Amino acid sequence: MSKDKFQKQWEVLSQRMEKVNSELLSLTYGTLVTQLLKDFEQVDAINVQLEKMGYNIGVRLIDEFLAKTGMGGCDCFRQTAEVIAKLGLRMFLGVAAEVTNWDADGTTCSLILHENPLADFVELPSSLSQLSYSNLICGVIRGALEQLQMKVNCTFVRDMLKGDDCYEIRLELVELIREEFIDDEDN
Amino acid sequence: MSKDKFQKQWEVLSQRMEKVNSELLSLTYGTLVTQLLKDFEQVDAINVQLEKMGYNIGVRLIDEFLAKTGMGGCDCFRQTAEVIAKLGLRMFLGVAAEVTNWDADGTTCSLILHENPLADFVELPSSLSQLSYSNLICGVIRGALEQLQMKVNCTFVRDMLKGDDCYEIRLELVELIREEFIDDEDN
Repeated sequence: MSKDKFQKQWEVLSQRMEKVNSELLSLTYGTLVTQLLKDFEQVDAINVQLEKMGYNIGVRLIDEFLAKTGMGGCDCFRQTAEVIAKLGLRMFLGVAAEVTNWDADGTTCSLILHENPLADFVELPSSLSQLSYSNLICGVIRGALEQLQMKVNCTFVRDMLKGDDCYEIRLELVELIREEFIDDEDN
Repeated sequence: MSKDKFQKQWEVLSQRMEKVNSELLSLTYGTLVTQLLKDFEQVDAINVQLEKMGYNIGVRLIDEFLAKTGMGGCDCFRQTAEVIAKLGLRMFLGVAAEVTNWDADGTTCSLILHENPLADFVELPSSLSQLSYSNLICGVIRGALEQLQMKVNCTFVRDMLKGDDCYEIRLELVELIREEFIDDEDN
Protein backbone atom coordinates (compact mmCIF):
# COMPACT_ATOMS: atom_id res chain seq x y z
CA MET A 1 0.00 0.00 0.00
CA SER A 2 1.54 3.30 -1.07
CA LYS A 3 1.83 6.37 1.12
CA ASP A 4 -0.84 8.04 -0.97
CA LYS A 5 -3.25 5.26 -0.26
CA PHE A 6 -2.74 5.65 3.47
CA GLN A 7 -3.35 9.37 3.17
CA LYS A 8 -6.55 8.82 1.18
CA GLN A 9 -7.70 6.16 3.61
CA TRP A 10 -6.97 8.52 6.49
CA GLU A 11 -9.09 11.24 4.93
CA VAL A 12 -12.08 8.89 4.71
CA LEU A 13 -11.45 7.49 8.17
CA SER A 14 -11.06 10.91 9.71
CA GLN A 15 -14.56 11.88 8.60
CA ARG A 16 -16.10 8.83 10.26
CA MET A 17 -14.49 9.51 13.63
CA GLU A 18 -16.00 11.04 16.75
CA LYS A 19 -13.34 13.60 17.46
CA VAL A 20 -12.15 15.19 20.65
CA ASN A 21 -9.29 17.52 21.46
CA SER A 22 -6.29 15.47 22.53
CA GLU A 23 -5.67 17.56 25.62
CA LEU A 24 -8.34 15.96 27.81
CA LEU A 25 -6.79 12.60 26.90
CA SER A 26 -3.30 13.86 27.86
CA LEU A 27 -4.47 15.20 31.20
CA THR A 28 -6.64 12.17 32.02
CA TYR A 29 -3.69 9.91 31.24
CA GLY A 30 -1.47 12.05 33.46
CA THR A 31 -4.01 11.65 36.26
CA LEU A 32 -3.88 7.88 35.82
CA VAL A 33 -0.07 7.80 35.99
CA THR A 34 -0.14 10.04 39.07
CA GLN A 35 -2.57 7.68 40.75
CA LEU A 36 -0.30 4.71 39.99
CA LEU A 37 2.65 6.62 41.45
CA LYS A 38 0.67 6.83 44.69
CA ASP A 39 -0.25 3.14 44.59
CA PHE A 40 3.02 1.45 43.66
CA GLU A 41 6.38 1.80 45.36
CA GLN A 42 8.49 0.55 42.48
CA VAL A 43 8.68 2.32 39.13
CA ASP A 44 9.18 -1.05 37.40
CA ALA A 45 5.80 -2.16 38.72
CA ILE A 46 4.19 0.96 37.28
CA ASN A 47 5.72 0.28 33.87
CA VAL A 48 4.26 -3.25 33.97
CA GLN A 49 0.90 -1.92 35.15
CA LEU A 50 0.69 0.70 32.38
CA GLU A 51 1.51 -1.94 29.78
CA LYS A 52 -1.17 -4.26 31.15
CA MET A 53 -3.75 -1.46 31.20
CA GLY A 54 -2.82 -0.68 27.61
CA TYR A 55 -3.16 -4.34 26.66
CA ASN A 56 -6.75 -4.39 27.95
CA ILE A 57 -7.50 -1.21 26.03
CA GLY A 58 -5.91 -2.55 22.83
CA VAL A 59 -8.01 -5.71 22.96
CA ARG A 60 -11.10 -3.50 22.77
CA LEU A 61 -9.77 -0.74 20.54
CA ILE A 62 -9.02 -3.13 17.66
CA ASP A 63 -12.76 -3.66 17.08
CA GLU A 64 -13.30 0.06 16.66
CA PHE A 65 -10.32 0.27 14.35
CA LEU A 66 -11.47 -2.60 12.11
CA ALA A 67 -15.04 -1.30 12.04
CA LYS A 68 -14.00 2.26 11.19
CA THR A 69 -11.39 1.33 8.58
CA GLY A 70 -13.29 -1.60 7.10
CA MET A 71 -9.99 -3.47 6.95
CA GLY A 72 -9.50 -7.18 7.31
CA GLY A 73 -6.21 -8.66 8.45
CA CYS A 74 -2.95 -7.55 6.84
CA ASP A 75 -1.03 -9.83 4.50
CA CYS A 76 2.27 -9.55 6.28
CA PHE A 77 3.92 -8.07 9.34
CA ARG A 78 5.52 -5.28 7.29
CA GLN A 79 2.11 -4.10 6.20
CA THR A 80 0.74 -4.45 9.73
CA ALA A 81 3.47 -2.14 11.04
CA GLU A 82 2.67 0.44 8.35
CA VAL A 83 -1.04 0.34 9.19
CA ILE A 84 -0.33 0.86 12.90
CA ALA A 85 2.01 3.74 12.11
CA LYS A 86 -0.05 5.52 9.45
CA LEU A 87 -3.62 4.82 10.56
CA GLY A 88 -3.85 3.31 14.05
CA LEU A 89 -1.65 5.75 15.95
CA ARG A 90 -3.03 8.64 13.92
CA MET A 91 -6.61 7.66 14.70
CA PHE A 92 -6.20 7.23 18.44
CA LEU A 93 -3.27 9.51 19.31
CA GLY A 94 -3.55 12.07 16.54
CA VAL A 95 0.03 11.51 15.33
CA ALA A 96 1.40 9.25 12.62
CA ALA A 97 4.72 7.39 12.96
CA GLU A 98 7.50 6.34 10.60
CA VAL A 99 8.44 2.69 10.28
CA THR A 100 12.20 2.11 10.05
CA ASN A 101 15.05 -0.08 11.06
CA TRP A 102 13.72 -3.47 9.90
CA ASP A 103 15.77 -6.52 10.70
CA ALA A 104 16.76 -8.89 7.90
CA ASP A 105 13.87 -11.33 8.29
CA GLY A 106 11.20 -8.64 8.54
CA THR A 107 10.01 -9.45 12.04
CA THR A 108 11.38 -6.48 14.00
CA CYS A 109 11.08 -2.79 13.27
CA SER A 110 10.91 0.61 14.94
CA LEU A 111 8.01 3.05 15.05
CA ILE A 112 9.36 6.60 15.28
CA LEU A 113 7.19 9.39 16.69
CA HIS A 114 8.26 13.00 16.91
CA GLU A 115 5.27 13.96 19.00
CA ASN A 116 3.27 12.11 21.62
CA PRO A 117 0.14 13.73 23.01
CA LEU A 118 0.16 11.46 26.07
CA ALA A 119 3.36 13.14 27.21
CA ASP A 120 2.36 16.74 26.43
CA PHE A 121 3.02 19.00 29.43
CA VAL A 122 5.02 16.26 31.18
CA GLU A 123 8.47 16.60 32.70
CA LEU A 124 9.98 13.64 34.49
CA PRO A 125 11.89 14.39 37.68
CA SER A 126 15.21 12.55 37.97
CA SER A 127 13.70 10.23 40.58
CA LEU A 128 11.43 8.85 37.82
CA SER A 129 14.10 8.38 35.17
CA GLN A 130 13.18 4.69 34.93
CA LEU A 131 9.49 5.40 34.33
CA SER A 132 8.30 4.46 30.86
CA TYR A 133 5.63 7.16 31.03
CA SER A 134 3.87 6.30 27.77
CA ASN A 135 4.09 2.52 28.19
CA LEU A 136 0.30 2.30 27.77
CA ILE A 137 0.87 2.68 24.02
CA CYS A 138 3.05 -0.46 23.91
CA GLY A 139 0.33 -2.37 25.71
CA VAL A 140 -2.33 -1.09 23.32
CA ILE A 141 -0.32 -2.30 20.31
CA ARG A 142 0.34 -5.69 21.91
CA GLY A 143 -3.33 -6.14 22.86
CA ALA A 144 -4.63 -5.08 19.46
CA LEU A 145 -2.23 -7.34 17.54
CA GLU A 146 -2.96 -10.32 19.76
CA GLN A 147 -6.58 -10.04 18.62
CA LEU A 148 -5.22 -10.32 15.07
CA GLN A 149 -3.32 -13.53 15.98
CA MET A 150 0.04 -11.83 16.26
CA LYS A 151 2.01 -12.15 19.46
CA VAL A 152 4.47 -9.27 19.71
CA ASN A 153 6.94 -7.65 22.06
CA CYS A 154 6.66 -3.90 22.15
CA THR A 155 8.88 -1.54 24.14
CA PHE A 156 10.04 2.07 24.18
CA VAL A 157 13.76 2.27 23.39
CA ARG A 158 13.92 6.06 22.97
CA ASP A 159 11.82 8.63 24.81
CA MET A 160 11.80 12.41 24.43
CA LEU A 161 10.94 12.69 28.14
CA LYS A 162 14.42 11.27 28.76
CA GLY A 163 16.19 13.63 26.41
CA ASP A 164 16.07 11.54 23.23
CA ASP A 165 15.29 13.34 19.99
CA CYS A 166 12.26 11.17 19.22
CA TYR A 167 10.08 8.40 20.63
CA GLU A 168 11.14 4.99 19.31
CA ILE A 169 8.97 1.95 19.91
CA ARG A 170 10.64 -1.35 19.06
CA LEU A 171 8.11 -3.83 17.72
CA GLU A 172 8.99 -7.52 17.39
CA LEU A 173 6.81 -10.28 16.00
CA VAL A 174 7.25 -13.26 18.29
CA GLU A 175 4.70 -15.71 16.97
CA LEU A 176 1.78 -16.01 14.65
CA ILE A 177 -0.92 -17.62 16.75
CA ARG A 178 -2.70 -20.38 14.90
CA GLU A 179 -6.35 -20.68 15.53
CA GLU A 180 -7.37 -24.22 16.18
CA PHE A 181 -10.41 -25.19 14.23
CA ILE A 182 -12.34 -28.17 15.42
CA ASP A 183 -14.02 -29.92 12.54
CA ASP A 184 -17.36 -30.99 13.95
CA GLU A 185 -18.06 -33.39 11.13
CA ASP A 186 -15.17 -35.62 12.10
CA ASN A 187 -16.24 -35.86 15.72
CA MET B 1 -24.62 35.07 20.92
CA SER B 2 -26.95 33.25 18.56
CA LYS B 3 -26.87 29.53 17.89
CA ASP B 4 -25.51 30.25 14.42
CA LYS B 5 -22.59 32.10 15.86
CA PHE B 6 -21.68 29.14 18.06
CA GLN B 7 -21.85 26.86 15.06
CA LYS B 8 -19.59 29.13 13.02
CA GLN B 9 -17.20 29.51 15.91
CA TRP B 10 -17.14 25.74 16.31
CA GLU B 11 -16.25 25.26 12.66
CA VAL B 12 -13.24 27.55 13.01
CA LEU B 13 -12.25 26.04 16.34
CA SER B 14 -12.57 22.50 15.07
CA GLN B 15 -9.97 23.16 12.38
CA ARG B 16 -7.46 24.42 14.92
CA MET B 17 -7.72 21.34 17.12
CA GLU B 18 -5.42 18.35 17.39
CA LYS B 19 -7.99 15.61 17.07
CA VAL B 20 -8.10 12.09 18.38
CA ASN B 21 -10.79 9.43 18.34
CA SER B 22 -12.78 9.64 21.56
CA GLU B 23 -12.48 5.92 22.22
CA LEU B 24 -8.96 5.98 23.66
CA LEU B 25 -10.16 8.71 26.02
CA SER B 26 -13.18 6.59 27.07
CA LEU B 27 -11.05 3.54 27.75
CA THR B 28 -8.28 5.45 29.51
CA TYR B 29 -10.88 7.09 31.73
CA GLY B 30 -12.41 3.68 32.44
CA THR B 31 -8.96 2.44 33.46
CA LEU B 32 -8.62 5.37 35.86
CA VAL B 33 -12.01 4.68 37.48
CA THR B 34 -11.15 0.99 37.77
CA GLN B 35 -7.89 1.87 39.51
CA LEU B 36 -9.77 4.11 41.97
CA LEU B 37 -12.20 1.27 42.67
CA LYS B 38 -9.20 -0.81 43.73
CA ASP B 39 -7.79 1.99 45.88
CA PHE B 40 -10.84 3.30 47.74
CA GLU B 41 -13.29 1.34 49.82
CA GLN B 42 -16.12 3.84 49.73
CA VAL B 43 -17.87 4.90 46.54
CA ASP B 44 -18.43 8.38 48.01
CA ALA B 45 -14.67 8.80 48.30
CA ILE B 46 -14.26 7.88 44.62
CA ASN B 47 -16.86 10.47 43.61
CA VAL B 48 -14.92 13.10 45.56
CA GLN B 49 -11.62 11.92 44.08
CA LEU B 50 -12.91 12.03 40.49
CA GLU B 51 -14.22 15.54 41.03
CA LYS B 52 -10.87 16.67 42.46
CA MET B 53 -8.98 15.10 39.57
CA GLY B 54 -11.32 16.88 37.18
CA TYR B 55 -10.75 20.17 39.02
CA ASN B 56 -7.00 19.90 38.48
CA ILE B 57 -7.58 19.12 34.81
CA GLY B 58 -10.03 22.02 34.37
CA VAL B 59 -7.54 24.49 35.85
CA ARG B 60 -5.16 23.58 33.01
CA LEU B 61 -7.68 22.97 30.25
CA ILE B 62 -9.08 26.50 30.42
CA ASP B 63 -5.81 27.89 29.02
CA GLU B 64 -6.09 25.65 25.97
CA PHE B 65 -9.73 26.62 25.56
CA LEU B 66 -9.07 30.37 25.74
CA ALA B 67 -6.06 30.08 23.44
CA LYS B 68 -7.92 28.01 20.83
CA THR B 69 -11.14 30.05 20.88
CA GLY B 70 -9.48 33.45 21.28
CA MET B 71 -12.22 34.33 23.76
CA GLY B 72 -11.91 36.59 26.74
CA GLY B 73 -14.23 36.30 29.72
CA CYS B 74 -18.00 36.10 29.22
CA ASP B 75 -20.23 39.02 30.10
CA CYS B 76 -22.63 37.06 32.24
CA PHE B 77 -23.20 33.62 33.70
CA ARG B 78 -25.89 32.83 31.13
CA GLN B 79 -23.41 33.31 28.34
CA THR B 80 -20.76 31.33 30.23
CA ALA B 81 -23.12 28.35 30.47
CA GLU B 82 -23.84 28.53 26.74
CA VAL B 83 -20.14 28.63 25.90
CA ILE B 84 -19.45 25.58 28.09
CA ALA B 85 -22.35 23.72 26.49
CA LYS B 86 -21.80 24.66 22.86
CA LEU B 87 -18.01 24.97 22.64
CA GLY B 88 -16.22 23.64 25.75
CA LEU B 89 -17.90 20.26 26.05
CA ARG B 90 -17.89 19.85 22.29
CA MET B 91 -14.18 20.59 22.05
CA PHE B 92 -13.05 18.24 24.79
CA LEU B 93 -15.76 15.54 24.87
CA GLY B 94 -16.99 15.72 21.30
CA VAL B 95 -20.61 16.37 22.33
CA ALA B 96 -22.51 19.60 22.76
CA ALA B 97 -25.10 20.13 25.51
CA GLU B 98 -28.35 22.06 25.87
CA VAL B 99 -28.72 24.67 28.57
CA THR B 100 -32.14 24.63 30.25
CA ASN B 101 -33.99 25.02 33.49
CA TRP B 102 -32.67 28.41 34.60
CA ASP B 103 -33.72 29.66 38.00
CA ALA B 104 -35.29 33.10 38.31
CA ASP B 105 -32.11 35.00 39.14
CA GLY B 106 -30.03 33.40 36.41
CA THR B 107 -27.49 31.73 38.65
CA THR B 108 -28.47 28.06 38.32
CA CYS B 109 -29.09 26.01 35.19
CA SER B 110 -28.88 22.51 33.80
CA LEU B 111 -26.58 21.19 31.07
CA ILE B 112 -28.29 18.32 29.26
CA LEU B 113 -26.26 15.74 27.36
CA HIS B 114 -27.73 12.87 25.39
CA GLU B 115 -24.38 11.23 24.86
CA ASN B 116 -21.27 11.05 26.98
CA PRO B 117 -18.15 9.46 25.51
CA LEU B 118 -16.61 8.94 28.95
CA ALA B 119 -19.36 6.44 29.71
CA ASP B 120 -19.35 4.61 26.37
CA PHE B 121 -19.17 0.84 26.88
CA VAL B 122 -19.87 1.22 30.61
CA GLU B 123 -22.48 -0.63 32.62
CA LEU B 124 -22.69 -0.03 36.33
CA PRO B 125 -23.31 -3.08 38.50
CA SER B 126 -25.93 -2.55 41.23
CA SER B 127 -23.18 -2.48 43.86
CA LEU B 128 -21.94 0.76 42.25
CA SER B 129 -25.31 2.49 41.98
CA GLN B 130 -23.95 5.40 44.05
CA LEU B 131 -20.95 5.93 41.79
CA SER B 132 -21.03 9.18 39.86
CA TYR B 133 -18.98 7.62 37.07
CA SER B 134 -18.48 10.77 35.01
CA ASN B 135 -17.89 13.09 37.96
CA LEU B 136 -14.58 14.17 36.42
CA ILE B 137 -16.60 16.41 34.08
CA CYS B 138 -18.10 18.33 37.02
CA GLY B 139 -14.63 18.86 38.40
CA VAL B 140 -13.32 20.06 35.03
CA ILE B 141 -16.11 22.66 34.81
CA ARG B 142 -15.53 23.82 38.39
CA GLY B 143 -11.76 24.09 37.87
CA ALA B 144 -12.06 25.92 34.57
CA LEU B 145 -14.61 28.44 35.88
CA GLU B 146 -12.60 29.11 39.02
CA GLN B 147 -9.78 30.29 36.74
CA LEU B 148 -12.33 32.73 35.29
CA GLN B 149 -13.17 34.03 38.80
CA MET B 150 -16.42 32.10 39.07
CA LYS B 151 -16.93 29.79 42.00
CA VAL B 152 -19.54 27.19 41.09
CA ASN B 153 -21.16 24.01 42.36
CA CYS B 154 -21.49 21.38 39.71
CA THR B 155 -23.13 17.96 40.13
CA PHE B 156 -24.76 15.22 38.09
CA VAL B 157 -28.49 15.01 38.90
CA ARG B 158 -29.42 12.62 36.08
CA ASP B 159 -27.23 9.88 34.62
CA MET B 160 -27.99 7.49 31.75
CA LEU B 161 -25.83 4.87 33.49
CA LYS B 162 -28.52 4.86 36.18
CA GLY B 163 -31.43 4.54 33.79
CA ASP B 164 -32.19 8.23 33.26
CA ASP B 165 -33.00 9.35 29.73
CA CYS B 166 -30.17 11.91 29.61
CA TYR B 167 -27.20 13.23 31.55
CA GLU B 168 -28.11 16.36 33.52
CA ILE B 169 -25.41 18.45 35.16
CA ARG B 170 -26.70 21.07 37.57
CA LEU B 171 -24.51 24.17 37.51
CA GLU B 172 -24.83 26.84 40.19
CA LEU B 173 -22.92 30.10 40.42
CA VAL B 174 -21.95 30.52 44.06
CA GLU B 175 -19.73 33.56 43.96
CA LEU B 176 -17.90 35.89 41.65
CA ILE B 177 -14.38 35.97 43.02
CA ARG B 178 -12.96 39.46 43.16
CA GLU B 179 -9.33 39.81 42.36
CA GLU B 180 -7.52 41.94 44.86
CA PHE B 181 -5.22 44.41 43.24
CA ILE B 182 -2.47 45.84 45.31
CA ASP B 183 -1.56 49.30 44.19
CA ASP B 184 2.20 49.44 44.50
CA GLU B 185 2.31 53.20 44.27
CA ASP B 186 0.48 53.58 47.54
CA ASN B 187 2.85 51.31 49.43
